[in-house]
Amino acid sequence: MLKGKSEKKTSLSELGEFGLIKHLTKHFTINCESTEKGIGDDAAVLEFGDKQALITTDLLVEGVHFDLAYMPLKHLGYKAVMVNLSDVYAMNGAATQITVSIAISNRFSLEAVEELYAGIQLACNNYNVDLIGGDTTSSVTGLLISITAIGEVNKEEVVYRNGAKPNDLLVVSGDLGSAYLGLQVLEREKQVFEANPNMQPDLDTYSYIVERQLKPEARRDIVSLLKELKVKPTSMIDISDGLSSEILHICSQSEVGCNLYEDKIPLDPQMISTCEEFNIDSTTVALSGGEDYELLFTISQEDFPKIQSNPNFSVIGHVTDKSEGAYLITRGNQKVELIAQGWNSLKDD
Amino acid sequence: MLKGKSEKKTSLSELGEFGLIKHLTKHFTINCESTEKGIGDDAAVLEFGDKQALITTDLLVEGVHFDLAYMPLKHLGYKAVMVNLSDVYAMNGAATQITVSIAISNRFSLEAVEELYAGIQLACNNYNVDLIGGDTTSSVTGLLISITAIGEVNKEEVVYRNGAKPNDLLVVSGDLGSAYLGLQVLEREKQVFEANPNMQPDLDTYSYIVERQLKPEARRDIVSLLKELKVKPTSMIDISDGLSSEILHICSQSEVGCNLYEDKIPLDPQMISTCEEFNIDSTTVALSGGEDYELLFTISQEDFPKIQSNPNFSVIGHVTDKSEGAYLITRGNQKVELIAQGWNSLKDD
Repeated sequence: MLKGKSEKKTSLSELGEFGLIKHLTKHFTINCESTEKGIGDDAAVLEFGDKQALITTDLLVEGVHFDLAYMPLKHLGYKAVMVNLSDVYAMNGAATQITVSIAISNRFSLEAVEELYAGIQLACNNYNVDLIGGDTTSSVTGLLISITAIGEVNKEEVVYRNGAKPNDLLVVSGDLGSAYLGLQVLEREKQVFEANPNMQPDLDTYSYIVERQLKPEARRDIVSLLKELKVKPTSMIDISDGLSSEILHICSQSEVGCNLYEDKIPLDPQMISTCEEFNIDSTTVALSGGEDYELLFTISQEDFPKIQSNPNFSVIGHVTDKSEGAYLITRGNQKVELIAQGWNSLKDD
Repeated sequence: MLKGKSEKKTSLSELGEFGLIKHLTKHFTINCESTEKGIGDDAAVLEFGDKQALITTDLLVEGVHFDLAYMPLKHLGYKAVMVNLSDVYAMNGAATQITVSIAISNRFSLEAVEELYAGIQLACNNYNVDLIGGDTTSSVTGLLISITAIGEVNKEEVVYRNGAKPNDLLVVSGDLGSAYLGLQVLEREKQVFEANPNMQPDLDTYSYIVERQLKPEARRDIVSLLKELKVKPTSMIDISDGLSSEILHICSQSEVGCNLYEDKIPLDPQMISTCEEFNIDSTTVALSGGEDYELLFTISQEDFPKIQSNPNFSVIGHVTDKSEGAYLITRGNQKVELIAQGWNSLKDD
């Protein structure tokens, strides 16, 4: 954390593009049955049989999505994969392959890029996903990572954002807001470090929320658990931009309204105490924080008994008719219209 | 050409990320049967039946792969798609879908991004490809485009780089080196323009080679033609980095050698005369120039009569045993070892 760049440096130009790709991918193995041909030709070849293929892609830009002052490259590689797998799980699918493209400026050494790929590889191993291709090029400034994830799903199991029906329950996995708050802690420590480089950051008190920011896990386990419980959500989305933004996506695509109950939003105790320390409202953080990579979904009321006592799930509201609008019901029983204030990388500031 | 930025400007932040995606993709239609669900959910859903899916991805970075001083944004969008489709065709497949991710700095207006997407859409229409997803984010500097293309191919029709056998013929479509030379012309005109902004560039003499650089076409027609002629190449690759680099990829993956004949390399007359003007060796340009997006493939000798008189193809050499190495046979009948001197974005200069 907050440490300087690697000591030994190998210039990337010594290897060249093809050498670099070969070097970085030599330890990746092919594990998925559907991977017919991985890296090494013009395109990868996938075999899907009677399943549907899922495709999703995300772009992470240095200075916009991450700050290498506190984001170790290995974590960054891991997280970049998670961000994409999360979208596949949000379709109720199984992630099977990824392609990874990076643009890197020449301030990065080979060892730095290796760290990044070590994180990517760890993610591939932990989630049983094959790296099957990509592109590696130079950038004028900074690091940029573009990942495309491919998954598969049986036709009858795919879950879209548009299937929520009035009276369905609104459910979320895990807890919310911690990743955003972890970022606030890291930003503060960075400023302390910049003011006095001899200050050692003490992050023990914030271990959970910092880990939620630096090493999020995509909820493959939730997809499996729902299958075990024989619950097929009527709609599903992953929480990357903040709860309110995601709820509004489901409402608009399903053409429904909803009531979300403030007192039902799952928050971690460390997140609550850190909110108090930073003097921020914890509900606002959960609604707009983003980067939680939990799954938000709706289920039919008849499935409620199947998830009722399960600690992985929180029922946070219910779906209403479109004409009723989308509202937050506060602890004080006030009805406040939900507005998406999630993260927007295109804003001018 | 060489014109300034758009006059009327709409700030991207007014629209926000979701608004921008919606705005840019509203005119894209779904045409491919395999596109079950396009933009608008966590992932796109593709239906492949008994076909194999092909996946390929490329990253284009401003200042590395393109210069907006002479590359109009619409052309850039078109070319970015071509670069990817070319890889699908090089597998003997049909391109069916693309995802487009862009990182843009706030010096770009909405109108500029619309121009880029107009080029992407034209490419989608011309090549019958569906845009099914992507990511749009800000960048600290410059423009970056990451495209992933998806294609399909019957299992028995896929062509890899590794199937070339000794005595096979080495064949190339179209002509080579023009795209590189077009770039040299554009670079020269840019310098003239920078020295004196009142100088109007006269590019008529160079129309073909400039178009090869600015608006290349991926060779879908060659894949169809080979099918018509009942020729299945034993190996195939697209020429993005220069002929010699691509030949060496086929040789190394097929574990073979080859003899390439200098006098057989197809060159356009405008390319030859411009080489003379620039005092560059035309063979060197064809071997190392890159960005031609022609197809290089090997065929069994028995298929030779099928392509012999076809103006779309040039037989430029033959495959030999691995032990014989990879050589260029010059016009003077000298044997020179082939070395990949193709474009390398990672080199230090």
